[in-house]
Amino acid sequence: MSGTGFTAGIDVGGTKCLAVVVDPENRIVAESRVPTPRGDTALIDVVEAVSVELIELAGGLDGIGVGLPGQMDLSGRMAFAPNLDLGDLPLQSLLEDRLETGVFVDNEANCAATAELALGIAQGVSDAVLITLGTGFGNAIIVNGMVNRGAFGMAGELGHTVVDPSGPQCSCGNKGCLERFASGSGLQWMAREAVASGEAPRLLTMAGGDVENVKGEHVTRAARDGDKAALEVVDRFSWWLALGLANAVAVLDPEMVILGGGLVTDWDLFDQRVRRHYESMVLAGPYRPPLRIEPVALGERSGAIGAALSARSL
Amino acid sequence: MSGTGFTAGIDVGGTKCLAVVVDPENRIVAESRVPTPRGDTALIDVVEAVSVELIELAGGLDGIGVGLPGQMDLSGRMAFAPNLDLGDLPLQSLLEDRLETGVFVDNEANCAATAELALGIAQGVSDAVLITLGTGFGNAIIVNGMVNRGAFGMAGELGHTVVDPSGPQCSCGNKGCLERFASGSGLQWMAREAVASGEAPRLLTMAGGDVENVKGEHVTRAARDGDKAALEVVDRFSWWLALGLANAVAVLDPEMVILGGGLVTDWDLFDQRVRRHYESMVLAGPYRPPLRIEPVALGERSGAIGAALSARSL
Repeated sequence: MSGTGFTAGIDVGGTKCLAVVVDPENRIVAESRVPTPRGDTALIDVVEAVSVELIELAGGLDGIGVGLPGQMDLSGRMAFAPNLDLGDLPLQSLLEDRLETGVFVDNEANCAATAELALGIAQGVSDAVLITLGTGFGNAIIVNGMVNRGAFGMAGELGHTVVDPSGPQCSCGNKGCLERFASGSGLQWMAREAVASGEAPRLLTMAGGDVENVKGEHVTRAARDGDKAALEVVDRFSWWLALGLANAVAVLDPEMVILGGGLVTDWDLFDQRVRRHYESMVLAGPYRPPLRIEPVALGERSGAIGAALSARSL
Repeated sequence: MSGTGFTAGIDVGGTKCLAVVVDPENRIVAESRVPTPRGDTALIDVVEAVSVELIELAGGLDGIGVGLPGQMDLSGRMAFAPNLDLGDLPLQSLLEDRLETGVFVDNEANCAATAELALGIAQGVSDAVLITLGTGFGNAIIVNGMVNRGAFGMAGELGHTVVDPSGPQCSCGNKGCLERFASGSGLQWMAREAVASGEAPRLLTMAGGDVENVKGEHVTRAARDGDKAALEVVDRFSWWLALGLANAVAVLDPEMVILGGGLVTDWDLFDQRVRRHYESMVLAGPYRPPLRIEPVALGERSGAIGAALSARSL
């Protein structure tokens, strides 16, 4: 404990680490970005380096929170992070040994939900589902105005519910997880399927004639130009995301779905399609208020801010 | 308020209504059973008749709780109960007008979870999922030691999550809901599929040669005799139930799954198969404690008891 009242939050994403220092009045007083390396040791080295930088910038920290795209148990052990190629790792204790300060680790979507509850769109909200649509499908669950981590800290993995047992192979070992469809990598897969079947010449051209180069951004760009095949991929993606929302609503009955992640930038392309498919699927739809779907209010910093807020309780 | 401290709970099932009166020391002091009629008016008449009987037996009641297999919102309005052929109905106010006493209405699985939390297997449990395997797939969610009804009272419908969009039609309007597989009606459907494909002659014989007469009880009986086709149906059913458990664990990370409903009588046939398939599917399985799967401690009365306990807060 440095007694400054400052805490840091580091959001370890699939491609970059975004770190902030938050003061006692919830203002961001320092920020840092570095690429996310691969491998256990490199990751810990980078988190240490960023932390040391932030400690110097802030003149001392009362604690450091780290959000990661994986499952962290309540003891601070990372169980599983396929999108980072990381496995079982006692992350909290490893970092506390290195940094000689209290460290809090949690799933990055849980961190984002913590930030949105305290300072963002979920203030005063009792029941909500937060989804980050990036390369993967991140998820946090808010019940009774708190992030619900479940019995062992690993709740909120809607992306790894099986929604089509004959669907494509997932990195988790199952087939047809929601993340295989409703995520950046799902959008890319659907685009490549469309190209491979010969139905999307425009996407193939944009990818330089190589189906393996087709990316989600080609779909959104071509869809904005009115390309029919791209719009069909957008609609297919929207159908699967709507299925995921309908499943989440059947189980959790939230008043709001909060969306974060890179795909939110193109949400105007998906919004009406997702809502239309959702309305056609959700259980007892006519007896529910319309589902509120809102973007995270704190933008790309929501995960880092939430990690910093959680580090206050260390 | 009669001031007796007695409350009644009525569990309206697909075939029968089971009603109890509970005294302030949680003892059952009266009980009644009647067949469940079809139709809005008949159902309300029967609940009224049972209530009047219990009021007389108990010498007055402080409130009446009613559990039903459907979605009740927080205002006491039934939104949707396809397994009772009931639609939109202001059940609580209709019953309060008739009975001139406070009435609490909720989903029957939520009532069972309330009873198991207070008096049964879930005492002291923070996070659990309760599933009733009867004709349908009933579900309640326990978070932080309380039944989680969600924002509008309609949470806990895992049975109506879509797990196979190309699966059989569900009464809710979707295709391939979990309930279509992992329920008594799912077991019956799988058995008929096996018979129709000519693979289950023993089941056809048991059903008097008519595929439309094949029932779930034929499967469990033939499986106990070692019939290969019946055991395959049991295994297929177990696989789908395991998928449902794995999905629930990914989202909710409970420490316990509590099983109720008619199929629990034959749980010894399913137990090891469900566990084996679950272990092969659950996210981050090696990093989790083994899932506790426990039958309801209060047996078939859990729903009625929970409804009576909830009526105390009226």
